[in-house]
Amino acid sequence: MTDDHGDLDTYLERTAAKRLDDYFAFLRIPSISALTEHEDDVRAAARFVADHLRESGIENVEVSETGGHPVVYGDWLHAADAPTVVVYGHYDVQPVDPLELWLRPPFEPSVEGDRVYARGAADDKGQIHLHLWAARAWLAVRGHLPVNVRYVFEGEEESGSVNLDRWLEANVHRLRGDLAVISDTSFFEGNLPAITVGLRGLMYAQIDVTGPKLDLHSGSYGGAVQNPANALVQILGGLKAPDGRVEIPGFYDDVAELTPQERTHLARIPFDEDAFRVGIGVPALFGEPGYTVTERRGARPTLDINGIWGGFQGEGSKTIIPSSAHAKISCRLVPNQEPDVIFERLRERVSELAPPGVNVSLRLHSGGRPSVTPIDHPATQTAARCVLEVFGQEPLYVRSGGSIPVAASFESIAGLPVVLLGFANPDDQAHAPNENMRLDNYEGGLRTIVRYWSALAVLRPVAA
Amino acid sequence: MTDDHGDLDTYLERTAAKRLDDYFAFLRIPSISALTEHEDDVRAAARFVADHLRESGIENVEVSETGGHPVVYGDWLHAADAPTVVVYGHYDVQPVDPLELWLRPPFEPSVEGDRVYARGAADDKGQIHLHLWAARAWLAVRGHLPVNVRYVFEGEEESGSVNLDRWLEANVHRLRGDLAVISDTSFFEGNLPAITVGLRGLMYAQIDVTGPKLDLHSGSYGGAVQNPANALVQILGGLKAPDGRVEIPGFYDDVAELTPQERTHLARIPFDEDAFRVGIGVPALFGEPGYTVTERRGARPTLDINGIWGGFQGEGSKTIIPSSAHAKISCRLVPNQEPDVIFERLRERVSELAPPGVNVSLRLHSGGRPSVTPIDHPATQTAARCVLEVFGQEPLYVRSGGSIPVAASFESIAGLPVVLLGFANPDDQAHAPNENMRLDNYEGGLRTIVRYWSALAVLRPVAA
Repeated sequence: MTDDHGDLDTYLERTAAKRLDDYFAFLRIPSISALTEHEDDVRAAARFVADHLRESGIENVEVSETGGHPVVYGDWLHAADAPTVVVYGHYDVQPVDPLELWLRPPFEPSVEGDRVYARGAADDKGQIHLHLWAARAWLAVRGHLPVNVRYVFEGEEESGSVNLDRWLEANVHRLRGDLAVISDTSFFEGNLPAITVGLRGLMYAQIDVTGPKLDLHSGSYGGAVQNPANALVQILGGLKAPDGRVEIPGFYDDVAELTPQERTHLARIPFDEDAFRVGIGVPALFGEPGYTVTERRGARPTLDINGIWGGFQGEGSKTIIPSSAHAKISCRLVPNQEPDVIFERLRERVSELAPPGVNVSLRLHSGGRPSVTPIDHPATQTAARCVLEVFGQEPLYVRSGGSIPVAASFESIAGLPVVLLGFANPDDQAHAPNENMRLDNYEGGLRTIVRYWSALAVLRPVAA
Repeated sequence: MTDDHGDLDTYLERTAAKRLDDYFAFLRIPSISALTEHEDDVRAAARFVADHLRESGIENVEVSETGGHPVVYGDWLHAADAPTVVVYGHYDVQPVDPLELWLRPPFEPSVEGDRVYARGAADDKGQIHLHLWAARAWLAVRGHLPVNVRYVFEGEEESGSVNLDRWLEANVHRLRGDLAVISDTSFFEGNLPAITVGLRGLMYAQIDVTGPKLDLHSGSYGGAVQNPANALVQILGGLKAPDGRVEIPGFYDDVAELTPQERTHLARIPFDEDAFRVGIGVPALFGEPGYTVTERRGARPTLDINGIWGGFQGEGSKTIIPSSAHAKISCRLVPNQEPDVIFERLRERVSELAPPGVNVSLRLHSGGRPSVTPIDHPATQTAARCVLEVFGQEPLYVRSGGSIPVAASFESIAGLPVVLLGFANPDDQAHAPNENMRLDNYEGGLRTIVRYWSALAVLRPVAA
């Protein structure tokens, strides 16, 4: 007999206003993990999650220390003979600058039209919130969950998950299960339901060029010294060819080229290039020659400057040679590139390009490995059926350009297959001003997870 | 009979404490002309200068509107048969960032050791102050000045003197005279007395690269769009060769090459390269091949990035493609380069380098022509004798790398030869944090000007 989840849906309808209040309370906590002044806020967000799990009846809840921001762990393991799911999300958020471009304060959530606006509304507090309430609904209405669950909610995803792998390794007993479900991805352009089956990795570094001990008068000293900003642009300009290819020797060596079948599959994904271009607001799309936009976003590596600064940034003119100049740069990686190897190749290239007269240093901020999940895995196919049931559409299988290094960690450390079941709208403006989550995606996501737990229950557990 | 100026020197000794108080009061006014929020402060500095001139007995004092920050004009024209000197200085100052590197607040002047520390202490309020007190000393002690003087004190020098040429053209009757004296230069390395006989010109521009209408997630969009910061470094990297030469076609076309005699003369200036390098704090000096450091600083054109910014500049990592990136760049020019011509050549080069997928715009902030004064002009030679008398050393004749566009304007608009008689110490940190003026340079400069007016009186006026 098929479960129609009517009682659970009724509960969700009845609690709609309460859930929104609770979502807002979570979003009000400015848990920016990259900024040390928000350390207490990150911890407050961890407590919010832990308290929520406990109130619902999740057991063994712990705000677990990592050396940095904590991991919130909790489990419920009473579904005999059912599989065990490790659920991952992150309760920390991106910084909010440029603040002046936000139409509403980033930590004062509001509903406008059919969306909730706030930093973290989609990435990833909103998606943790779906899991919190899916569990609460099951336990409140039925007194049990149809599967065993272990929640691992992280607080350092937006600052490079620097302590997570160590925590996972030390807590491998808490990761015993049959699959990992990560809800930190989004639907496809046009808000088409999608399941992500590939993620890019990341190598994020900073280049610092230092010259004179003080800013110098560009008249009195110009011509006598190397200008750190000129040196920096010379280095950065040498990392990428004008055609968009990365110019670091060996950069493409380990890249798994797309197979003809994969290219055919990606070409089938509906994609309106012109609408995409207009939505971003650029005069033309641009990227590595020889690949489609969809391929370049999901299955090809990149090199981008994320930030650059040095010298005078004010109004008008100031005639100085800056004493230093800096850039943050990152590469999105694809199978089988390794972040550490790419960082070493970058280091060699920067050394080669560094001009005389300045000191150039390079440091790694964070890294994460790429990952790919099989489309035909039963857990993926089961998720797809639940998405179809709730959203009325077969999901697309996409390779996302983003990076969720924990996906690779769950595979390598815990041996778990990973299902990337995310519900954010593709125009969520994650990492940008005016981040938002569509309420229909939120409500549909919640109902999908509620059903997914039932649907997984009939699969045979491999671990116990 | 030679005037020994004993009575004037006594007056200066007696007023030392009062003069320092007065100097500090002037330095306390944050007259940053580049920043609109300091507009009232710039005007307050103009009033300070005008009131000072009036109190001393200078006539026809006026705070004269220019459309921007005002010019302070005043004259004293009762020295029959003596020459008329047009004195120029600027009462505006540079911005103060990076503020965190100042050891004392920039607008709270203090004496430490043998120096006065404050923004403007040397450039150029300190040097205007010498002229204010030279006039006050003559008029207080002797009731007259030995020459006719016209004071033209500007308030826009640090923001490109955008309205000055128009003011000079409209007030050409107030510039009638025999020579212009500009006190806005410094002594040579090692604080060796020097008279500047050449100045570089300036072309200061801003490049703005705009791409997506918002910062984009570098994972979801990386590979699909041109990154404005990558585009900017590609453009800037193409403006200068790794060896230090400017790579703008036609840039060097109009440069007056140094003659063998000039090179011999410049080679005679004592210059300790290693001490200079250590003072700046760089691992090596650097510049255009084929020229000495002294030649490169004074007689060769440059291209420097004065500021660069775009994207994330905070702590840690933020994975965005910035929506825009910007740079301020400037060229120091030498005879016979014209700022407008150089700007056009830069524009052509930037167009050539601009990659697809972004919008690139270029605008001129300010420009000024280079100038050279003959060493053998009687007014130069007379100044040199006064410097020798006060400082006990023959001054060097140097070509400064800095730009004082008004020097070229006095030549072209008013037909005046220009004597660049400046007294700042070469380590004054003008335009940088902890700007300062040595008190011995300040006191010696004042006594030199007092004597210069007497010494000029015996030269035959050419205008009347």
